[in-house]
This record gives sequence, structure tokens and C-alpha cells, in this order.
Amino acid sequence: MDQGSYRTADKPYERDTRYIETRITRDGRDGYPVEPGRYRLIAAYACPWATRTIIVRRLLGLDDAISLGLCGPTHDSRSWTFDLDPDGVDPVLGIPRLQDAYFARTPGYSKGITVPAIVDVGSGAVVTNDFAQITIDFELEWVDFHRPGAPQLYPEDLRAEIDEVNAVVYRDVNNGVYRCGFASSQQAYDAAYDQLFAGLDWVSERLKGQRYLVGDTITEADVRLFTTLARFDPVYHGHFKCNREKLSEMPVLWAYVRDLFQTPGFGDSTNFAQIKQHYYEVHRDINPSGIVPKGPDLRNWFSPHGREKLGGRPFGAGTAPDPLPTPAG
Amino acid sequence: MDQGSYRTADKPYERDTRYIETRITRDGRDGYPVEPGRYRLIAAYACPWATRTIIVRRLLGLDDAISLGLCGPTHDSRSWTFDLDPDGVDPVLGIPRLQDAYFARTPGYSKGITVPAIVDVGSGAVVTNDFAQITIDFELEWVDFHRPGAPQLYPEDLRAEIDEVNAVVYRDVNNGVYRCGFASSQQAYDAAYDQLFAGLDWVSERLKGQRYLVGDTITEADVRLFTTLARFDPVYHGHFKCNREKLSEMPVLWAYVRDLFQTPGFGDSTNFAQIKQHYYEVHRDINPSGIVPKGPDLRNWFSPHGREKLGGRPFGAGTAPDPLPTPAG
Repeated sequence: MDQGSYRTADKPYERDTRYIETRITRDGRDGYPVEPGRYRLIAAYACPWATRTIIVRRLLGLDDAISLGLCGPTHDSRSWTFDLDPDGVDPVLGIPRLQDAYFARTPGYSKGITVPAIVDVGSGAVVTNDFAQITIDFELEWVDFHRPGAPQLYPEDLRAEIDEVNAVVYRDVNNGVYRCGFASSQQAYDAAYDQLFAGLDWVSERLKGQRYLVGDTITEADVRLFTTLARFDPVYHGHFKCNREKLSEMPVLWAYVRDLFQTPGFGDSTNFAQIKQHYYEVHRDINPSGIVPKGPDLRNWFSPHGREKLGGRPFGAGTAPDPLPTPAG
Repeated sequence: MDQGSYRTADKPYERDTRYIETRITRDGRDGYPVEPGRYRLIAAYACPWATRTIIVRRLLGLDDAISLGLCGPTHDSRSWTFDLDPDGVDPVLGIPRLQDAYFARTPGYSKGITVPAIVDVGSGAVVTNDFAQITIDFELEWVDFHRPGAPQLYPEDLRAEIDEVNAVVYRDVNNGVYRCGFASSQQAYDAAYDQLFAGLDWVSERLKGQRYLVGDTITEADVRLFTTLARFDPVYHGHFKCNREKLSEMPVLWAYVRDLFQTPGFGDSTNFAQIKQHYYEVHRDINPSGIVPKGPDLRNWFSPHGREKLGGRPFGAGTAPDPLPTPAG
């Protein structure tokens, strides 16, 4: 959902969370019923919030039901763009800028032009950009179109615990890295840094003896933590000053993230080049030169993680999605 | 010698090396003879070039012969200042800004106001700021005033080899980190990064089987490499994008730098807080917010390094200087 300008003098960074909350549901109560082929997910490998939807769509096998359009890693201050597509136009929606789909929904739409967004292909209008709800709805509302062997990412009996973990991870980690990077005062940064690493220590402690965050299979909670951890050493450590240590220096989390990375659906949805380009080129207020670091050396993401010995069944009673080339892009 | 503005559009970073090359010698041929109590070394813990002189002065026991004035870690675009001293004035020179001593030498002096600088206390004028010559002259010209047991940092039989190593280390490492950080184009940065890590790999290979860079004792070559390596993880890795890996991820160099750090004269001349403050607060063109990262965790600098097993005699036939509290400041 990254976009636009971020820092306000002398105030801690606060994320604008005013999303379009229309939902696509089985009963179609908001006017948008689940219907294969009707919607297009617009995402970007650069964005951690959007990458969650790419991962979940793939784990659940919704590829045929919901098409995927990808914005390029960089954008101007107003909109993500389809600069990776031939002629710079999304081949299904026929638009060059994602804001066109937001304007089709609300002329002059003034809030953030964010990914992920789901677009109703017929009208060309954004239905929702409420990233936290999108993956939950993929899991619960689109269940009739899941692939055979799709995992249960949000099982009813674990839902309360998943929600609880997600709340801490969002506050301290997912959004915590941004609070470090976009802090406008030393004091705000120092507080955000302490909160971030307290949060990371908390999940690390939790993951010491269990393979996944909740239960013994991959769930929504792991997806949400993964997309932040995947950006930690390439971006957040240096660019956002989240530098108590690198993720690769935190043994439990480093093994955990490689375990997921090496699982179909995760590493193949991770495009480190686009991730680095996005943050370092777009945030000129943090990195005026726009120069993208060559490091870190990422070959170690494929090294053995040893987490199998903790047991756990990645996909529960289900199966892995078919393999794709790794990494994405 | 850090000061002023650095980047020029579309040109690789080039250090201004036009120094005041007057020398203080035994024969006084430049008008400035070696004379205890006559000169004041002006340095700053922040600056790697200045810290070389602090280390060498201490290793050789020149403390009584040459007094030391310290500038604060930050400065404005024109001059280092004595903001750490009472009333912001150097107690010996009686000046608030180092540029006053440069102006006493040359009215309107227009080149960089850099540390280290040696000032003739009587006239209040800078004698030299030629950092590379200053430590050599401490070693060879001030020999009558060295402490008993002072090491030979530039012994005649190793001089050619020390010069050779120093040339590579200066080009690829000491100045290489600045070429990464002040690159004004992606291409210039990429080239500087490759050269830097090639240089680090070269010294790492050299240090794999021997404890010090040249011979089996500490020399001028180790001092020059040390002050860059000490800044690597706290500053250069993130701020200058020297991020193939951290120094703490390069086993040979990481053990080597901790060996030196734990040797009297090195760790006690290293002030990590001032180092971080300097780079992150002064270089607003790289770090507009001026926020100083809390990390990295530096407690590991005191951990065992295991380099004693390579043999070597840190101070040769000499002895260590008396211990001081570690770290500096």
C-alpha cells in the first residue's frame, strides 16, 4: 500500500488507514459477489502488503479465478504505474496508471493510490484496497475456487490466536519498520526502534520451539510476518535504520524466514531486485541520490535452515502449490 | 579530514588532497623544528584520518610532547568547532572554530578546514594538515621524545612493504568507502562498491595467516586500516551503502579488528557515539533527517578474537602504552 509522502514534522509516523472497505463475498452483500474471472488483483512485488495477496492467491490456487496485474517497482508521488507491461498499459484493464481505476470508482479520489487493489474488470473500478481483509476473504469467501489440496490459512479453531499474533506483528513489526524509517525526530525513531526489536524478540521467542507462528502449519500469520522479514536485510536494516542487527544475525528468525522462502509460494513471490529498487528510488526524502545498494549478498537465502526438526506440516492436510521458478520476476 | 560538501553531479567522488605540506622535522628545514610543548594536535574522534594521529601519538607516548585538542563530532559546512570544551573554546588556542587557526596561517584560507591539524601554539597558526605525513613524522622525526618501550611503527626494513599496502588500502578501502557513499550516480557507486570489496577481500586474504598487515608487529599499516574498519558496521555499511556484508560477517577482518580494538591505543581511541553522530548528522545530503541509528549492537567488539594463535608480537621489542578506559570519550 506504499505511496505518496510520509513524514510530518515532529509527529511520529502514522499510516493512513482509510481504505475502501467494500468486500467481495459469497453473498455479494456489498454488490460484488465472488465470481471467477470477474476481478483483477493489482499488486507489486515491491510492496510487502501487496505481496501478501500474491502469496495467498498462489497458496490457495486462485490463479485462474482472479487474474493478477503487476505494477512496476517505482512510482511517482501520486500513483503506481504499469510500466512493466508492453506500452506501459495493463493488458486487461487498458490503463497506464493505477489511479485510473481509483478514479473510475470515485472521481478525484484523494486518498492513497495503493496496492494491493482489486478491480472489477467490467467497470474498471477498484472494489477494495483493504489489504488486511483481502487475504482473509481469499481464504474464506473464495473457498469454492481453491485448488485441490489448498491449505487452511485461517482455520476457525486458530482464528483468535492468529488475530492476536497479527495485531502485535502489525503494530511492532510490519508497521514498526516504517515508523523507524519515517520518523521525523530522533525521539520518535528511538521509540520505534525499541518497539520493533521488542516485537522481533517476541516472535523469535515464540518461534524458538515451534516451526510456524500459530499451530503447526503455515497460516495467515506467517504470510504477514514473512513479507516484512524478506525486506529486512535488503532494505529496512539500512534504509530504515532498523539496525540493531541484521535478520541473518538473529538465528531463530533467520532460519524461520529461509524455511518459508524455500517453501513454494513464498520465495517465488519474492523479487529482491524490485524490492530494493522501490524503497531506495521512491523515498527520495530518505535517500536523495536514489542510488540502490548492491548488497547484501542474498545467496544465503537458499542455505539449509534445519527447521524441519521442529516437526509441523507446512500445508497441513493439504499440499504445496506447483513449483515456480524462484525468485519471482 | 572530513569537511564541507562532497558530491558533484555525474562525476565520481574525488577527495580534495591539497593539504598544507609544511613539515615539523628534527632539522627544522620548513621553519618548524621538533620541540616539545610547542605544538598542539587538533583532532576529532569522529574522523578516521584524525583518529590515526590520536592512536599513533598514544602508542608512541607523545602525550607530553604534543598536546591534544578535540573538536566535537559535528560541524557546519565550513569548520570543525570546539563545542565540547567549556564555553566552546579550545583552552590552549583560545579559539572557538578550527578555521581561526587556518586563517592565522593564511588569511581567507579557502581549502578544506580539516582535522587532523597541527597548530603552532605561539602563533596560533596551522603548521600542517597533511594527515598521511603527520603520523610518519610522529614516528621518525619525534623519536627522541617517544616513551620508553615505544613500538617501531614504520621500521626501515619494512617501509617499502608498508607503503605498498597503504597505497592499496587508501585507494580501495580508506577512500573507497567515501567513493561509495558520495557517488552521484548508480554507475559510480557500483564501481566503487566492487573496488571496495575487492580491496577488503585482498586484505582479508593477506590477514588469514598472519596477525598484522606487515611483519609480525603492529605498524602504520594497521593503524590506517583500523580506523576505517572501526567505522564499517556503525556507519559505512548503512550510511555509505557498503553492504555486501557487515564487517562482523567477514571472519578474518572481524577477528583482526577486534584484536586491535582490544589492544591499548586502539579501542581507547575509538568513540563509536561520536563516530555515528558525525556522519549521520553532518551529511544531510545523504541523511536529510539527521537521525542517528541506535544500532548496531557493539558489545561484541569485546568478544574473544583468537588471533593470538597466529603468533606475532603486537609491540615488537617494545611494550604496550598504559591502559586507559575503553572506549574513548
